[in-house]
Amino acid sequence: MSDIKLSEISSLPPKDSFKKEFNHETRHLIKKIGHLQHKMYAEGKKSILVILQGMDASGKDGVVKTVFSETNPSGIDITAFKKPTEEEMAHDFLWRVHQKVPRKGNIMVFNRSHYEDILIQRVNEWITMSRVEQRMSSINAFENLLQYDSDTVVLKFYLHLSHEKQQKKLQERIDNPEKQWKHNDSDWEESKKWDAYMEAYEYAINASEIPWHIIPADKQWYRNYLIATIVYEALHKLDPQLPTLDGNDPK
Amino acid sequence: MSDIKLSEISSLPPKDSFKKEFNHETRHLIKKIGHLQHKMYAEGKKSILVILQGMDASGKDGVVKTVFSETNPSGIDITAFKKPTEEEMAHDFLWRVHQKVPRKGNIMVFNRSHYEDILIQRVNEWITMSRVEQRMSSINAFENLLQYDSDTVVLKFYLHLSHEKQQKKLQERIDNPEKQWKHNDSDWEESKKWDAYMEAYEYAINASEIPWHIIPADKQWYRNYLIATIVYEALHKLDPQLPTLDGNDPK
Repeated sequence: MSDIKLSEISSLPPKDSFKKEFNHETRHLIKKIGHLQHKMYAEGKKSILVILQGMDASGKDGVVKTVFSETNPSGIDITAFKKPTEEEMAHDFLWRVHQKVPRKGNIMVFNRSHYEDILIQRVNEWITMSRVEQRMSSINAFENLLQYDSDTVVLKFYLHLSHEKQQKKLQERIDNPEKQWKHNDSDWEESKKWDAYMEAYEYAINASEIPWHIIPADKQWYRNYLIATIVYEALHKLDPQLPTLDGNDPK
Repeated sequence: MSDIKLSEISSLPPKDSFKKEFNHETRHLIKKIGHLQHKMYAEGKKSILVILQGMDASGKDGVVKTVFSETNPSGIDITAFKKPTEEEMAHDFLWRVHQKVPRKGNIMVFNRSHYEDILIQRVNEWITMSRVEQRMSSINAFENLLQYDSDTVVLKFYLHLSHEKQQKKLQERIDNPEKQWKHNDSDWEESKKWDAYMEAYEYAINASEIPWHIIPADKQWYRNYLIATIVYEALHKLDPQLPTLDGNDPK
């Protein structure tokens, strides 16, 4: 398979797709996700790790709020990885991440993830390219471990936003009082490094053993629809069953 | 390098070695270990993970008690991995292990470790050989991660006891009231599977990327001397420096 070039992938929905119809379908999917997640939680055998990556304002928070809005909170957790603490810095980069992987029966959503350790750290040249490659190899081993040893499905989403759309959304965070809480000067600084970030993302996506879903993210209704579809299909494939009294296993 | 065969390695000290001289030297090494560990703790840059593996009664507890007896407890921890809890079983086999790796400046001693997941689990056929191989590959990736990403030196010791000596020591745990607290019927059950354990250990030792130290363990004074020597040499090589007021780095 040849390498993915992000500049060749549209960040917009296909022509002639209608917001209203997609939103209708998304609401339907969200309900089905809630239904299946309840069964998965009750069964307690498999788990799902959702990894959300994307530039600032690409809609990671929006995905969390929308796609998982009908789930049972007992069986789902969200971890937003921020700047590492001193204790986290005193360990390898996967130390804090490994602690947060889902237990059997649960969904865990990483809002940003271990990929930041080869994205922001690479773009700002806090680490060398040879360290990036070592870490990529550790990430592949780590994600494979989750899959084979604890039956965790790893779903990775890159929210593919255009630079123009990002700048528009960052400006809204200044202009709209409802959105000002999200404003952060450093987002503009990182935005200036757009091309370097695209290069770092392309490397991460192409060097990953577990494939990424590239989600056109300029329109939130299309982005939510796509992610809801993929999460629903993963749950459907797991086919979770409510345990019964006799034998505790309906199969 | 050709594969190690445990049956071809003596579990006894070389002829003409004298307990008294070795014990004298060991006491000397233990003091030097304490001195260097204090510096490593103060410096807070590197760490050491000591992995102790061996059959029941091979002396893992004795090593902990002797070799690290002069260390500053603030900078050292011991983790004895027991039968996994329900929460641990709901995750991959390295989940509980990764949480316990040393932070920068510290020594962590694993009394038993992630290797049990390819030893006891293999010998009792709780997992397939193909799972053993997957786990071995994950172990190599995990230990490499610690080395390159958090400057952790991984020191692995296999306490090489003869089957005859083990049976003698297990019998002592019945006959000697001072040792009865260590007696456990299941140790005798596992002892019957000696050959299968030796095969499982040989696989783990030969498939490891970070090499093992095979420690003849029938005599505790020789065992302690060897491990103290290796731990001392690792600390000496790290060459820890007490931070100073100016620049906080004497180099």
